[in-house]
Amino acid sequence: VDSGALQSIRHMLKSLTDADIAHLIESSPPKQRSVLWRLLDNRREGSVLQELGEELQANFLKNKDTDELIALTDGLEPDDAADILQQLPDRVIREVLLAMDAQDRQRVEKILPYHEDTAGGLMNTDNITTRPDLSLDVVLRYLRRHDELPDIIDTIFVVNRKDKFLGLLPISKLLSSDPSMTVREVMTTDIEPILAHTSDTDVASLFERNDWVSSPVVNDEGQLLGRITIDDVVDVIREDADHSLLSMAGLDEEADTFATVRATAPRRALWLGVNLLAALFSANVIGLFEATIEKVVALAVLMPIVASMGGVAGNQTLTIIIRGMALGQIGNSNTSWLFTRELGVAVINGLIWACCAAIIAVLWFNDTTIGMIIAGAMVINLMIAAAAGVLIPVALKAMKIDPALAGSMALTTITDAVGFFTFLGLATLFL
Amino acid sequence: VDSGALQSIRHMLKSLTDADIAHLIESSPPKQRSVLWRLLDNRREGSVLQELGEELQANFLKNKDTDELIALTDGLEPDDAADILQQLPDRVIREVLLAMDAQDRQRVEKILPYHEDTAGGLMNTDNITTRPDLSLDVVLRYLRRHDELPDIIDTIFVVNRKDKFLGLLPISKLLSSDPSMTVREVMTTDIEPILAHTSDTDVASLFERNDWVSSPVVNDEGQLLGRITIDDVVDVIREDADHSLLSMAGLDEEADTFATVRATAPRRALWLGVNLLAALFSANVIGLFEATIEKVVALAVLMPIVASMGGVAGNQTLTIIIRGMALGQIGNSNTSWLFTRELGVAVINGLIWACCAAIIAVLWFNDTTIGMIIAGAMVINLMIAAAAGVLIPVALKAMKIDPALAGSMALTTITDAVGFFTFLGLATLFL
Repeated sequence: VDSGALQSIRHMLKSLTDADIAHLIESSPPKQRSVLWRLLDNRREGSVLQELGEELQANFLKNKDTDELIALTDGLEPDDAADILQQLPDRVIREVLLAMDAQDRQRVEKILPYHEDTAGGLMNTDNITTRPDLSLDVVLRYLRRHDELPDIIDTIFVVNRKDKFLGLLPISKLLSSDPSMTVREVMTTDIEPILAHTSDTDVASLFERNDWVSSPVVNDEGQLLGRITIDDVVDVIREDADHSLLSMAGLDEEADTFATVRATAPRRALWLGVNLLAALFSANVIGLFEATIEKVVALAVLMPIVASMGGVAGNQTLTIIIRGMALGQIGNSNTSWLFTRELGVAVINGLIWACCAAIIAVLWFNDTTIGMIIAGAMVINLMIAAAAGVLIPVALKAMKIDPALAGSMALTTITDAVGFFTFLGLATLFL
Repeated sequence: VDSGALQSIRHMLKSLTDADIAHLIESSPPKQRSVLWRLLDNRREGSVLQELGEELQANFLKNKDTDELIALTDGLEPDDAADILQQLPDRVIREVLLAMDAQDRQRVEKILPYHEDTAGGLMNTDNITTRPDLSLDVVLRYLRRHDELPDIIDTIFVVNRKDKFLGLLPISKLLSSDPSMTVREVMTTDIEPILAHTSDTDVASLFERNDWVSSPVVNDEGQLLGRITIDDVVDVIREDADHSLLSMAGLDEEADTFATVRATAPRRALWLGVNLLAALFSANVIGLFEATIEKVVALAVLMPIVASMGGVAGNQTLTIIIRGMALGQIGNSNTSWLFTRELGVAVINGLIWACCAAIIAVLWFNDTTIGMIIAGAMVINLMIAAAAGVLIPVALKAMKIDPALAGSMALTTITDAVGFFTFLGLATLFL
């Protein structure tokens, strides 16, 4: 890239928002990434960094010395600063904290102990609080004394002298009520504040169900610690939804689309190795029937059809169950209904396509028995696939293993092995 | 269910929010669903209905007569009422609209022309507007005259006499600025309002990138039509994220986890039929080599391993590309970099696992040539899989076909056919 081009990129970056620059960096291969990063105004590094995915953050932080890190976290929201600090060694964290002014340090230190996947890690400490016995007029004057209020301010939190959370004063009520009323008369108390150790997934589903814009976070004693705002929850929803998709292809950790070959190959290798073991297991099942195949080679031609149909049908069931689990729809009370439904679907679709496959096999190899065998094997395999598609994720979840990650591999192993075994087994019996 | 149980369910429903009842209904098999629906207070039917997925809405609306529909939409937000009306026949829509009071009808009619997947369909008309030449004090008094303000009110829209959108007056600034200032002095004008025909996916990515809580919607002339709030955008984000996961298993339309056998079987049948065609194609490829398999039955045992490894590797590439596309990260400028990266990963992982597979094959069948053949076929198939994993979604997208839906089937067909062809082809040449 020549210097004229560099100049015009620098100019373009100036006109973009932090989020747009982060998106541009995430959409660029490694070389362009470091050019973009180098051209970025130093003062914006921190705010762009906090919009990036974790993997990229870690990459960029790796080469920073303590002074650069201090400059980077300067001016960030406490939760964003804490997210970045949590990726650094303890020694560096302490140095960066020491360089902050007292108020910022206190705010960040309040968040640091909480894991970033909990309500405590998601929360910010920019909430505005008031007491129940004040009049709305006093609250309005108190707000006016602020030079700047947080961008998202839909509600003010009402606390007592010991910082215990008492209720919400929605801005909409503050603005539409008679200013001489007290906070206590206007505030909403029918809301449960979020406990700091609630998981981020649970926080997201609370926000989704209740259409919240922000929510208070309290400790076990009910003391107000901070608040979570919807912009951070949206990121959680996006990540959780991505998780199922990526996990089902064995890509759990691969958040960065443009990771290098060196970073990508080892991550994917493990999953392929597991699949090699699974495929060897299926091959072993075929090996049991070498003598039968030697007699009728047509079996080798048709056997992948039975395995493939089972795999596709089972994967449909598995996907529905995994998505239902992610949405919190599936529990003990309805699993058996789903099991029966899936078996019903498998029987119907199994019979339809088994007939088609049988007709094609008979016409192709001019042998009625082979047609009967492929039809029987297909119906059995689709039923096993449906049962496995429900039971595997339920069992994995009970064992606290991520069903999205392990489920698809386990399922395909079963549908391949059962497909080969029933088809070749029936053939050994009847041919 | 006996009447005592019914009574206690009715009681429980009273204590739940609309969203919780909707979640309960979505998590229940059909019979429980109709019991829950019957026990629900009539006056809450509308507000629970608008929290349900589209498929369930259509199911419940099917059996309603016009009077019931009028009662149902009464008191709903205009965008929710419009969503429900859009599913009804034109004649019924007209009758329901006629039964509304003039103000409600006008609001719903403003939204009805827009498809629900656009900004116009997402928007609501509960926005509060002001003029630029008023003082903040006047605005505050104007707000106080409202009995109730919308729950989400983070900003007031500034318009001129012709309703043209001029800028935003954030509530945070209204509360913290000197009341004698004018709206014009305080308002933000550096925000682009959303055009009514923008797709909901684009709206969601605007909200995500800019951390908006609400945003104005305008027509092509720049006139304010309404506003979109984050709670509706969160639903779009969730649906879009689900779409890739479901589509990759051929489940595009299957939004309802607890659909009946009768509704589920036909939807899944088509996908299985397509897969049967794909599997027959692969079987045909094997059929080309019947003579070779007859000579060496070990080939039939080992051939699914080559196909399976290609399928898994290709699916990893495909998933990364489809997710990158959904996030708007992939364009002409970086596709060739991704193509090269994926080929690089395929060569490295192909060589590693091809060696392992070769060693196992040699030990198993005591034949060095078979080992060489499986290794060669596996490396070739993994490279083809990587290339297909990038090119298939890019090509489908260019043809305006959903890559998530058609991609995985097309990919597996290629990796199966190429896997069988290279392995059996090499065997025919060298054995």
